[in-house]
Order: sequence, then C-alpha cells, then structure tokens
Amino acid sequence: MKNKENAIVVGAGLVGSLWSILLAKRGYKVDLYEQRSDVRKKGFIGGRSINLAMSHRGWKALEKAGVDQKIRELSIPMHGRMMHSTTGELTFQPYGKQNEAIYSVSRGGLNLELLNIADSFENVTINFDEKCLGIDTKTKTVGFSNYATKEKTSQDADLIFGTDGAFSAVRDSIQRRPRFNYSQDYLEHGYKELSIPPLPNGDFALDKNALHIWPRGHFMLIALPNIDGSFTCTLFLPFEGEVSFEKLTDNETVLAFFEKYFADTIPLIPNLLEEFSENPTSGLVTVKCSPWSYANKVMLMGDASHAIVPFYGQGMNSGFEDCTVLDELIDINEGDWLETFKEFNDARITDANAISELAKRNFVEMRDSVGNDLFLLRKKIEKHLNKKYPKQFLPVYSMVSFSHIRYSEALAELDRQDKLFERILKIDDIKNNWADNPQVDVVFLEWHESFLINN
Amino acid sequence: MKNKENAIVVGAGLVGSLWSILLAKRGYKVDLYEQRSDVRKKGFIGGRSINLAMSHRGWKALEKAGVDQKIRELSIPMHGRMMHSTTGELTFQPYGKQNEAIYSVSRGGLNLELLNIADSFENVTINFDEKCLGIDTKTKTVGFSNYATKEKTSQDADLIFGTDGAFSAVRDSIQRRPRFNYSQDYLEHGYKELSIPPLPNGDFALDKNALHIWPRGHFMLIALPNIDGSFTCTLFLPFEGEVSFEKLTDNETVLAFFEKYFADTIPLIPNLLEEFSENPTSGLVTVKCSPWSYANKVMLMGDASHAIVPFYGQGMNSGFEDCTVLDELIDINEGDWLETFKEFNDARITDANAISELAKRNFVEMRDSVGNDLFLLRKKIEKHLNKKYPKQFLPVYSMVSFSHIRYSEALAELDRQDKLFERILKIDDIKNNWADNPQVDVVFLEWHESFLINN
Repeated sequence: MKNKENAIVVGAGLVGSLWSILLAKRGYKVDLYEQRSDVRKKGFIGGRSINLAMSHRGWKALEKAGVDQKIRELSIPMHGRMMHSTTGELTFQPYGKQNEAIYSVSRGGLNLELLNIADSFENVTINFDEKCLGIDTKTKTVGFSNYATKEKTSQDADLIFGTDGAFSAVRDSIQRRPRFNYSQDYLEHGYKELSIPPLPNGDFALDKNALHIWPRGHFMLIALPNIDGSFTCTLFLPFEGEVSFEKLTDNETVLAFFEKYFADTIPLIPNLLEEFSENPTSGLVTVKCSPWSYANKVMLMGDASHAIVPFYGQGMNSGFEDCTVLDELIDINEGDWLETFKEFNDARITDANAISELAKRNFVEMRDSVGNDLFLLRKKIEKHLNKKYPKQFLPVYSMVSFSHIRYSEALAELDRQDKLFERILKIDDIKNNWADNPQVDVVFLEWHESFLINN
Repeated sequence: MKNKENAIVVGAGLVGSLWSILLAKRGYKVDLYEQRSDVRKKGFIGGRSINLAMSHRGWKALEKAGVDQKIRELSIPMHGRMMHSTTGELTFQPYGKQNEAIYSVSRGGLNLELLNIADSFENVTINFDEKCLGIDTKTKTVGFSNYATKEKTSQDADLIFGTDGAFSAVRDSIQRRPRFNYSQDYLEHGYKELSIPPLPNGDFALDKNALHIWPRGHFMLIALPNIDGSFTCTLFLPFEGEVSFEKLTDNETVLAFFEKYFADTIPLIPNLLEEFSENPTSGLVTVKCSPWSYANKVMLMGDASHAIVPFYGQGMNSGFEDCTVLDELIDINEGDWLETFKEFNDARITDANAISELAKRNFVEMRDSVGNDLFLLRKKIEKHLNKKYPKQFLPVYSMVSFSHIRYSEALAELDRQDKLFERILKIDDIKNNWADNPQVDVVFLEWHESFLINN
C-alpha cells in the first residue's frame, strides 16, 4: 500500500483542516468535505466552546503547518490558574516555569486561518455544504448529500480520513463491523456558557493572563480571556441532584445560586439571567473506539476517534498531535500506509485513552482540589522538586502541557507521583517546613531509586 | 401515563416473543414485528448458538407464560461440568445440590413454541419480513421496511419495546440522543461451532447429563447435549496470537491443533475439518447502555440493552428475567408506566452490568480454573459450607443459576467469598483435611460475622 496519491478528508474542523494541509504539503491531492457552509463567508456562530487552551502539542502541529506565528499573535498566554473563593479571595497557582503558559485561542479564528491555508494549496479542494452519509462498507467509498442541490454522491480515494468530530458519520458507519469496540459515555455534569464583556474602557474585567476558576467542590465556573477584552465563562454543574441545572428553573433560583456561590461574578456578567435561559445546557461526552482504521483505507482522527472532556485543555491539542504523529509515521515507514495505519493504531489509541483518563481526573482537581490547602502545598513542593531535581522530577501537568512525552507515560507518572506525595505530605510539620527539609529529599530519593530498580 | 392500550414489540426472538405473551395476557393489543420470515414455515437455520442453558430465571419467566411444561419435556438436565484433560481423563463437578441442574434447550425449538403461544392470542398480531429502520426521534414512531413488498411504513403505539438483539436498530436510532451512554466491546476470543453426532445406535457419544469442558488455559472447547442424541461443540479461541484462529489456516494445522489439545474429540467429530473450514468464526460482544428507555415510550430489553458473553449461560435467562421484573413492576405501579420505566432503569441496569461482569469472569473459570486443583477444592468446600451453614452460605454459582437473588448481590457476594477462600485455602494441610477441620469453621464464622457487622 505505497504511493497513494489522493485522499478524502471528511470534516473541515480544526483537525481536518490541519491534516489536509499536512497531506497537501506531501503532494497529495486532497478533497476536504464539510457539512457547514463556508464559515469564512458567514462568520462563526458562537454559543459553544468558543475558546481553547493551546499548549505544546498544539503548537508543534501548527508549526508543521506553518501557521503558528499568526495564531500566536491572536492568542493570550495564561500562566496559571486564578482561584476565586466564595468570599472573593484570589489565589494564583502557576502552571509551570516562568516562561511557560497555555494560550487562549479562539476556535473560530483558528479554524478560519487553517481553512485559508488549506485553500491556498492548489492540490486541496474544499467542498462545503456536503453532509457525510458515512462509508459504504461494500464499495469502501464515502457518501455525501449536498444541502443546496440535495444531490447524493459517492466519492472514492486511495485514503479516507474521518475528522468529523465526536458524532462522526464515518465512525457510525463502521460501528457495526465485527470486532469494532466503541463507547460513548456522558458525565453527570452539563455545561453552559456565559460571558464577561470588557470594561467600559475596553480593559479586561479580570487578570487576562490566567485561567480563572471558581472551584466549588462538585461543580465550578471557569473563565478564559478573549482578545477583544471579554472572557468566556463556562459553568459545569450536575444535570440532576441537590445543586444542579434541573433546580435552576427561573431567574430567582439562578440569581440565588450565583449569589451563594459566585457572588463576585454577578457584576461581571451583565446579561447573566438572559444568557442563562437562552444558552443551551450541553452534555460532556467521552468517546473511545478501537481500531481507528477500517479496511486499510479509512482512518479516524481527533474527536471522531477520541472525544474527551475539556478539563485538561487537551481535546484540540491531542487531535493536533494525531496529525503530528501520523505525519511522522509516514516518514518513518517511507510511505507504507499499511504499516503506518498499524503503528498509528497501536501507539495512539493507548495515548488517547490515557489523556481521556487524565482529563476526567483533572475535573476533580479543578472543581475541588484546587481549593484545598494540601493540594496547593503539593503543587509548591512539585515545583521545588522540579527545580532541585530537574532530570528526575517533572510535574505531570508540565508533561502533558509543556512537553511531547506520550500521554500514556504521563498517566503512569501521575500514579507514581501520587504515591510519592502520599508519603511526603505525611512528613511532620510539612506545611511549614518543606523547602529545606532533608526528610523530603530522603523520601524523594528513595522513591526515585525504586523507580530505577523497577525499570 | 396510565392505561396504555397498545404496544409494538420489535423482534420476535426469545425475549420479544415471551414479552408479547406477557403483554397479551394483560390485555394489551400487541403488534410483534420480525425481520425474518416465519420460522415455523421454513425451519430454523443452524450454525450459531443453537442450544442454551436454561436455569431458574428462565424457567420462572416461562412459567409466567405458561410454556414451561412443554419446554421441560424437550430439555436435557446437565447436573454439572465434566472436565476433559488433555490425556482424556474425566472429572465431574456438580453445579449445585443433587436435584439442581441447568437445562440444555434448543434455541430454535424454544423460539418456535413461544411464537406459537404468542400467535394463539387474539390480541397479538405477528408481522414477519419487516425490517426495523429504527425510531424516528421527531415523531416517536418506529419505521419498518417490508422485505417482500419493499413498502416502508411508520408505526405508532402507546409503548414500543426494542427486543431486536445485540445489533438493535431501535437502540441504534437513539444512540445519538443526548446523555445516552453506550458501549460495545469485543473479546479477543472468537468462537466456532462443531458437532458430535449420535453413535450409530442412536446413543449419546458422551455423558448426556453434563456440560462438557475441555479447559486449556487461554482457550477451551465445550459441548452441550441435544435431544436428538447429538452434542453441539463450541471452540473458544483467541483470534490472534500464538495459539489462535489466525494460525489454523488449513487441514494440517487444524488437525495438529486438535491432536495436541483435544485428541479425545477427534473420533467424536467426524466432519471436523469440513465444519472447521465451513462454519464461521464469530466474535463475542458485550453491549451496555443507559438509559434503556427513550421518551417515556420506548424500552429496550434483552440483548438490545445488555448483550453479554455466554460463559455463565445467562444471556437468555437474564433477558427472560427482564420480562419477569418488568411485569412485576407493572403490578407494583398499578399500570403507571412512567414510574415502571423509571424503576426498571434504576434496578435492572445495575443487575445487567453485574451479570455481564460475572459472565466475563466465568470465562476465566471455565477455560482455566476448572482444570486447577485448588479451584476444585474450593468448590468442594463451598458445597460443604453450604450444607453445614445453609442460611449463611450459598455458592455464587447457585445464587446465579438456582435462585432469583439479584445479579448485583451475587457479584458483591463473589468478591466477599473470594476473600473468604483466600483465607481458607491458606489453612495448613487444607487439601487433605477440610471436611472436619475446626479451623475452617473458625475462619468461616469470623468472615460471616464481619459481614453482619458491616451490614
């Protein structure tokens, strides 16, 4: 299966647009299909997940596509988490070293740039208004229905990539194939977007270089900055139960809820009640499947094969890393797609499952632990250990956000570090005495040595 | 949502036919749809899973339908497992007490009887050759396409039951509804059916009152008796790997495999090579979903909502128990379907997940542990404890197969009993001294007491 020459990419979202660019750079003739109309004509429709947190893995893929500089100019660095207590006190906790940050980027703006670049290649054709009907498993072709003309067509190519998101039509059509494992799993929490406009003078209403969190145990509110001076807020709350969306049925209950838990945001969200009633309450799904390929011809990428919850800011980053990894495998295997597909399945599914798990665990961290003294102490000691033992200790958040270490290694390391901190946090008077405490070093070095022995 | 008067049942397999009978007995007007032609005209097509092991839960539902006596006459009791070693030695291990057995029943024969009874009700209409196209989520109706006339129709009723199996079209159409959790998960093992005909004189070639197992660690062969004197064998083997289906590519490799692992079966399976090459190798899927209901109108039952692996013989039994439980909830809720659906979801999904897990664990037991001395010792001590402490100790196999205790309780009890036997099997010289060993009683009573304290 060498020297394939043309490819179909289904879905011109972030991953599909980027992947089309990388294929085009290799000289492939690419047909990119998108069910929406050309977003560049109509402008993006907001309402859901309009900003993203770009980190190392995302940037690397953008560099490959040659679009990183332009996006950097449109992004806002967030150097850490700013926690808001119920009484309005602020606590800042850095994500990594001084020069490290995750970057708030507009999903719409990023998608637009990627589409423009894809379109600039002579060997890329973008077909809008084409709803994918799935793969015909007999002919191994992909069907489309045009929204405008109602015409149904069947398209073929050497390779077909399904980058059509969590509710992928490509994946749907192969779901019934023998031995295709699949799961979709919703959190008990839903989310709703709200917005904090700029101040009258155009300034940001909150510190713009932080990801703001109002952690409240079983639920939370977060806010990310946008370059126009506004913040996009997202409320994550159980659908049902004592404190839940089902209980917030009218203006009175919504206002009482915000007064009790998020009082400092009420002056910042002027259209709170309007937005709360008008914006949808959406679910948070985790999608897993295996294998990601079908018939040595079709490959799923991004949310189509591994939709995750948003709490590690790695949904887009992991989808972009799919592109990097697959692109590198094409080089390694010198264009042998059969081997490339095999290796991509073998390595990447494990990593996608790992970031899926990490993202779920980070929800507990964000909504609950970040408000907890022992957790903040751990973060400080992590930073200290990383400074003192840079080769032996890297905090897991840094592995995920500021490195290209495999997600599966980061997950294994989290389990290891949990064991380390179980011991460190038991050291006498650790709260007041951790920076120069020889006990910390003893425990750390023992822990590190046991790792070397076991590996 | 009281006093609904008509119902559609999609799928006239075992669960759909039985459920139609129970609905008909309550006076509902029932429309039963089946995509196959009337099996009573054409006879059943064999090839896959043609006999089943009926146990208490199955019999109870058949009693409700009034068909138990007739089926008992067509069934063969299996009082225990007969293990075949590689050298052909036999070991018998009873399933329960002397009068307890699971019953080998023909799937086709059972389905036929249930269809006949359903058809005998004036208020039941059976529609064959109607392929279900799924639920229209806008109109909440169910679509069908007639194989003969090609006519597509849309049917409505107060209630719609999806009993259309592991690849349910009803479930498929609600899979994309918000907050519908779903998973399909294949074992690494596949299965292939083979057959042992009766001896020339018509006798059974093996003891007919046992379920025969050739446990070989990572794989196994089993055989269940049929009333015509034959046995249906099933080989469970990994698809890939050192010893696997992919390695059995021709007559030579198949024969060498059987000579090495199942030598005593070669004279019993006269058409081994023919059947091996002609019969399909099929996958073993576990399906889970939640909720099982949609729009307070549609309910999934049986394999459509909880397909499980066959190693506990509980696939059909659990589907039949769905009917018993749902039928009882209608009584309890005096015809309030909204509450009935709610309670069925709440209780039954937990139990279905539990039998799903028990069935997976029983595969390890059947293919591996049953050939293990310590395991057989445990089984003997279980029987002894059950006799000595009948109120305090019931083996889990008996809970599942010979009681109506909830599957979720049986699974919890298995975890508890594992802890008990971890301790009992460590008692000095336990192998030779368990029947009158006071140490066993001490450990047992301690274990039992700790349970009472914790509950």
